[in-house]
Amino acid sequence: MNAREIIAKKQAGQELSAAQIEDFVMGYVKGSVPDYQMSALLMAIYFQGMSFRETADLVKIMTASGRQVNLEQVPKRKVDKHSTGGVGDKVSLVLAPIVAACGVPVPMISGRGLGHTGGTLDKLESIPGFTTSLTVEEFIQQVAEVGCALIGQTDEIVPADAKMYALRDVTATVGSIPLVAGSIMSKKIAEGINALLLDVKFGRGAIFPDIEKARQLAHHLVAIGAGVNLSVTALLTDMDQPLGRAVGNWIEVNECLKILRNQDDATDLQELCLTEAAIMLQLGEQTEDYRAARRLAEDALRSGALPRKPRTLSQTRS
Amino acid sequence: MNAREIIAKKQAGQELSAAQIEDFVMGYVKGSVPDYQMSALLMAIYFQGMSFRETADLVKIMTASGRQVNLEQVPKRKVDKHSTGGVGDKVSLVLAPIVAACGVPVPMISGRGLGHTGGTLDKLESIPGFTTSLTVEEFIQQVAEVGCALIGQTDEIVPADAKMYALRDVTATVGSIPLVAGSIMSKKIAEGINALLLDVKFGRGAIFPDIEKARQLAHHLVAIGAGVNLSVTALLTDMDQPLGRAVGNWIEVNECLKILRNQDDATDLQELCLTEAAIMLQLGEQTEDYRAARRLAEDALRSGALPRKPRTLSQTRS
Repeated sequence: MNAREIIAKKQAGQELSAAQIEDFVMGYVKGSVPDYQMSALLMAIYFQGMSFRETADLVKIMTASGRQVNLEQVPKRKVDKHSTGGVGDKVSLVLAPIVAACGVPVPMISGRGLGHTGGTLDKLESIPGFTTSLTVEEFIQQVAEVGCALIGQTDEIVPADAKMYALRDVTATVGSIPLVAGSIMSKKIAEGINALLLDVKFGRGAIFPDIEKARQLAHHLVAIGAGVNLSVTALLTDMDQPLGRAVGNWIEVNECLKILRNQDDATDLQELCLTEAAIMLQLGEQTEDYRAARRLAEDALRSGALPRKPRTLSQTRS
Repeated sequence: MNAREIIAKKQAGQELSAAQIEDFVMGYVKGSVPDYQMSALLMAIYFQGMSFRETADLVKIMTASGRQVNLEQVPKRKVDKHSTGGVGDKVSLVLAPIVAACGVPVPMISGRGLGHTGGTLDKLESIPGFTTSLTVEEFIQQVAEVGCALIGQTDEIVPADAKMYALRDVTATVGSIPLVAGSIMSKKIAEGINALLLDVKFGRGAIFPDIEKARQLAHHLVAIGAGVNLSVTALLTDMDQPLGRAVGNWIEVNECLKILRNQDDATDLQELCLTEAAIMLQLGEQTEDYRAARRLAEDALRSGALPRKPRTLSQTRS
């Protein structure tokens, strides 16, 4: 491989082969491609983009850079949700218990705050004693016993993303659609899920404020899913105003607890959680019909029983 | 300074301030800006370009990164020539003696082969015992005594260019017009000259085959000269075919010696050398009139006496 020739090819707007992407990315992970060549390639990708085929190859190569979780011991289809992030977006904390309570396992590897948007892990860690650092084995066991688990990235899963993301962060190449798509999808595929709901935000509080750019990202993500045998549904949702009532880690957790206890009036947050829950129940093949799925989710939420799932080994260790 | 913000600003197509360019470039030279951020900025410049004002600021900052030669002890206007390079382009070896013999001092800091093009230093070093590594003091003394000197880059002169060029070479960012302009002009200004003739090649054997890109580069170079009080004339010359009869370091030196001894028939090479010599004599204010300057150059060449300049401390040391 000649790294400079690969950079020059992308710079000229040409499509890279799977072998070229693999040589470059794995060379970078292993240290034979230096960071200054990777940052030049990332900037060339920022300007020239990547085809669906290139992005799908990038995802496969990134996924294969680390361990892939095997969730076959957990029966049923496993479904996750990923949001591109926004202000007050605490959906995962409400959504995972609803969907799990309705019978579809939710293995969630979540992220930290990104730019001005909040991160699910940061919110969870405002709960005293709560740990988001489970081992892969603990993660699998908790999904099997509780029906859902929300943990942080581990070093074993997609090391290529961790290394590339750190470099993108300091070289102004975070906002590239194929790179965002590669980062999201490689981690989700490595989770061992069968289906994925994507909440792609647009509007003033979103990473991609422009709806057209958000739509392009959604198309990229769905196309990648089709290429790796993962059922992917994408929603484009409004992030022009903060979601729900609270913004701030601990008060967001509190807001979610009230909703799970059925002590809060309907807000845009509940509406979004119920819509997403219904789609995830369809993706999990719990029911084919959206209205039926939505009723299951509403009943679960209305029960007020969602915070009372039995403790396991578990995420509250204090 | 926030290096990432500067990268993002150029990535978005905005103009960088002189202070931003200085912080970034000098930070890179001193090691506080890492190479992966410089390579990201270089790639962003490749795609977004730089205004004349930005390029002129880049040149001033690069020039000031090292020592500037003071040639005030050599009387008269000092004039150099720079070619963007081509196949069989051995013009400097013929041109410098002609112009020096006609009374205009020629201090030349030359380069190595670049891509498929040959380098003046590589040609000179095919002469047994010839050294292109003079100190700055020896360089000044030789220009004063012989009227011309052809030497290589020293570590003292424009260290920013040496470091940036090495990075551009491995990140496919050599072919960026403002970066090429910055590299050429910073070195030429540091030589302590008063005027510069630029031979910007186009055609199949040139670095920029497209005449329009060559023309843009010529405009950039002339605009920078105006900004730093250097008289600059640019020629666009055809590099569709090798120049002269020979291609290869030693046989090119031999071809030049024959021309300087007046033992060779007229070729495209002689024509180009005489044209450039005449313009350099005008830039050196030896005569105002092009025809008169051309006659001076022709007479010098026809004398056959040009190889017989007295030896100095000198470039043949063996």
